[in-house]
This record gives sequence, C-alpha cells and structure tokens, in this order.
Amino acid sequence: MTGTTRSRLAPDERRSQLLDLGVRLLATRSLSELSIDLLAEEAGISRGLLYHYFGNKHAFHEAVVRRAADDLIAQTAPPPGGDPRARLLASVTAYVDYVVANYEGYVSLIKGAAGGNETLRQIYEEARSALSDRIFTEDAQGELIADTPRNRLVVRGWSAMTEELVVTWGADQRTGHTEVSRDELLAIIGGSLPALVGE
Amino acid sequence: MTGTTRSRLAPDERRSQLLDLGVRLLATRSLSELSIDLLAEEAGISRGLLYHYFGNKHAFHEAVVRRAADDLIAQTAPPPGGDPRARLLASVTAYVDYVVANYEGYVSLIKGAAGGNETLRQIYEEARSALSDRIFTEDAQGELIADTPRNRLVVRGWSAMTEELVVTWGADQRTGHTEVSRDELLAIIGGSLPALVGE
Repeated sequence: MTGTTRSRLAPDERRSQLLDLGVRLLATRSLSELSIDLLAEEAGISRGLLYHYFGNKHAFHEAVVRRAADDLIAQTAPPPGGDPRARLLASVTAYVDYVVANYEGYVSLIKGAAGGNETLRQIYEEARSALSDRIFTEDAQGELIADTPRNRLVVRGWSAMTEELVVTWGADQRTGHTEVSRDELLAIIGGSLPALVGE
Repeated sequence: MTGTTRSRLAPDERRSQLLDLGVRLLATRSLSELSIDLLAEEAGISRGLLYHYFGNKHAFHEAVVRRAADDLIAQTAPPPGGDPRARLLASVTAYVDYVVANYEGYVSLIKGAAGGNETLRQIYEEARSALSDRIFTEDAQGELIADTPRNRLVVRGWSAMTEELVVTWGADQRTGHTEVSRDELLAIIGGSLPALVGE
C-alpha cells in the first residue's frame, strides 16, 4: 500500500515530502551530518532517486535550509488581530519554540551563514529580513513601533539579541543549567522591543 | 639611527612593536589580507626575522588578534568613578569608536570566530566575556544592574545587539547611507541596558 501511495504522488509533492523529512532530520543534526544517504535510509528510497530530485549534496542542503526558513517564517506569523504587544509576544513565543525544537539545525545554519557559505548567508539574511520587515508591515499604523530609520536599526539589533538569547538559553537548557525560566525569557524578549523603541 | 634604535630593543619590545603594527594594518584589512610579507614590508625588516618572531602565519594571526582584543578591552575601560550610567556610556562610546576605526579587522574576526576557526572563536569569546564580566565587576554594588542569572543572560543578548548595531551602522556609514547619527546610536546602546534590566 505504501508503495502504491508513493507512486501516485506527483513529483512536486514527493519532493516536498522529502524536504519535510530533511527538515525533521536537520532539527537534531548539523548540516554536515545531514546526508543524502541518511535521507534515503529514512525515506526508504534509493540514493539514485534522491539525486534525481536534488541533483547533488549542495543543492539538497540548500533546498532543505530554504524549506526550514520558510517553516520558521510561517510558524512565527502573529495572530491576525488584537493588541500589538500580545501579537508580538505570540510571534516571539513561536520563535523560541521553533529554535528549541530545531536546535542543532538552527545553530549550524547560523554558523554556516556567518562563516562564509554564501548560499546559507543569503537564505539566512532573507529569513531575517522577512521577520524584521514583518514587525513593520504587521504594525502598519505604528501602534507599537513607527517605521523610521532609527527603528529599522533598532529592530535589527533586537533580532540579533533575540537570537543570542534563545541560542544561549537553549544551550543552557540542554545541559540542564538554565536558571532562567521560559516565561522569563519570553518576557525579556517580548518586553525589550517596546522598551528599545520607547527611549 | 633607526637601525641602531631597533637593535637596542629587547626581543619582547620588538615583538610588541611589530604586533602594534600588525593591529594597525588589520584595522583596514581582513585577516586573510594580513600577511607576513605585508608586515615585513611595512616594518622594513626581513620575512625571515618575522618568522623568527611569529613562527608561521597562523601563529602570527593569533598573536595580532590577541593584541587587538587586549587593545579593545583596554580602550573600553570605563572611567574610574562617577555615575554608573555615564560610565557605561563612556565605555560604549569607546567601543563604537574602536569598531569604526578598526572596521575591516573587527568584522573579519567576527566572521572567523563564527565560521569555525577555533582559535579565533576562543579569543573572541574571551574578549566578549571580559567585556560582559566587567559590566558586573565595575558595578559591584549593583547600582545599574544586579548580578543575577537573568541579568547575565540579558547582558549577553545586549552585547550581541550592540555588536550588530555598530557593525550595521558602520557599514551604512562607510557607504554614506547612515540616517542615524552617532549620538542617536550611542543613546540607543547606552540607554538599552538599563531599559532591559528595568523590566
């Protein structure tokens, strides 16, 4: 039955399904640990078929990271309406949960992007810009933060701070050394942007 | 006369002088552009003598980056007494000026440290820890910021934000696209730590 189901999927759907599996595998692995062999084994299909879908290891990694970035952007979308601060906190909460759930892959993306891999850097910057731009487009009336050059710079700094806080907190949590609760972390991140803008 | 003066310097002094020159050269160059050949040319001495002092290119880079990190820590020391906020602002101002004056080298250190060069990562982390720890040791009474696990995490995030703000602002300034003044930048950075702690 499984084989029959598989064969009925259109190539795009099949590729998409494989990318989802790649993203799940990346959650608990660095990019260098994510191979086409591993994906083939987990998907129960041949390496040859995977090369047919992804071409080579570089293209495979790029496709998985793009899918992961799209997932991050989708999962951190704020709820459609309500109080601006509550919407920001909802988005921040989703971001923290995403990073914690996909820790290995996320940290390896940051390292790859910072270390000179041009493709990873580009995907990383695009995702970061999308998240930053959303702060302003989701708040078009400027209830929480007005769209000014100063505040664009502030949001960029706040994004870097948020990433550092979550990655550090996540590392501490994984080794059992966290003395800061998840709620405290969320309060620091969610409360800091209005504080930074309000100065 | 120059030759005579040189020959009278003890080897440690001579090495130190060469490191200062290396740091000055690194200010406007990335690490990959800083070679022993270049240092030899600028110092007017032989490559052989430089290899005598530094061993190899890797050791040379490590020594220059350590010296640069020491310079950064020394130059950003706050004034010995006075209002905690004014002392923080003085330290932040020195940091901004240091990064702007040593832009190429500083950015290449960040990239090298993030990208998997273990020696650079270690020097970078040590310098960052020294700067973060100083926030607490210089404020032992906790006038500005109490020494708690939460605030240790906050200072780590604030450091990442500060670096991102200065590097972004510096890049914009170099291309003539800065719409945020140096005073505004300093106010954002200097004012944000008390705001983050005060929540």
